[in-house]
Amino acid sequence: MKDVTYTVSAEARSKTRLDVSARDFTIVVDEPKQLGGTDAGPNPLEYELASLAGCINVTGHLVAREMGLTISDLKMTLSGTLNPARFMGRGEEERAGFKEIAVVLELSGVTDAAQLEAWRAAVEERCPVSDNLNHGTEVHVSIQE
Amino acid sequence: MKDVTYTVSAEARSKTRLDVSARDFTIVVDEPKQLGGTDAGPNPLEYELASLAGCINVTGHLVAREMGLTISDLKMTLSGTLNPARFMGRGEEERAGFKEIAVVLELSGVTDAAQLEAWRAAVEERCPVSDNLNHGTEVHVSIQE
Repeated sequence: MKDVTYTVSAEARSKTRLDVSARDFTIVVDEPKQLGGTDAGPNPLEYELASLAGCINVTGHLVAREMGLTISDLKMTLSGTLNPARFMGRGEEERAGFKEIAVVLELSGVTDAAQLEAWRAAVEERCPVSDNLNHGTEVHVSIQE
Repeated sequence: MKDVTYTVSAEARSKTRLDVSARDFTIVVDEPKQLGGTDAGPNPLEYELASLAGCINVTGHLVAREMGLTISDLKMTLSGTLNPARFMGRGEEERAGFKEIAVVLELSGVTDAAQLEAWRAAVEERCPVSDNLNHGTEVHVSIQE
């Protein structure tokens, strides 16, 4: 299969607000007021979790169809814990990002435990966002002169 | 500093559309029509890039302030390339997610090359989303019975 490239462009509206253009969509990222922002949108870490959630939904339905399963009423809760010290420049004992991300799914339609586990494992492995997090992805930041 | 936990919840509206609740915000994730979706919002990979972009904005301004720099007119372009075969269940030669993510920044206000490089490196290291990608983050998917 051919490679596919995704591109977004973005412009800072303030020190916390960034408007991101993805095709015809605008994604507004901001921070809540208590973190110095204007609260015009979810913050980057909430989008990180939303990205993973959306990927699990799409991959989950794709894998279910391949397995002949029909899943319904899919809901999920995602959470991640981090220590803000490194981000704030106040210590390097802990990493900057989430230490791990927990995803808890609720769904109907599949009752066989072995099938459910095979589905779960395939989704985790084939979801591109889950793969990017689980296995790491090099981020190259450069500055255009 | 104390740990901070971020949590979002989500509900599938279709096999591609997921509505994610983050505090008072709703993040709508979908796929374009040519990928079988209803195009109600950006797709998971676009949100992955937006999350990183927003994090670089916030971290960039924080680090600049610490360094006594004033950055302005910050714009960025982010892109990632993946091969869809693994996601589609058509081969395991390549990983599922982006092979790498390129972030190109444009900004005004800092002209000294050494300062700019010190700023760039600190941002990449201290941005939580960049850290989650660069260094990997365990994703634990479980199913509530």
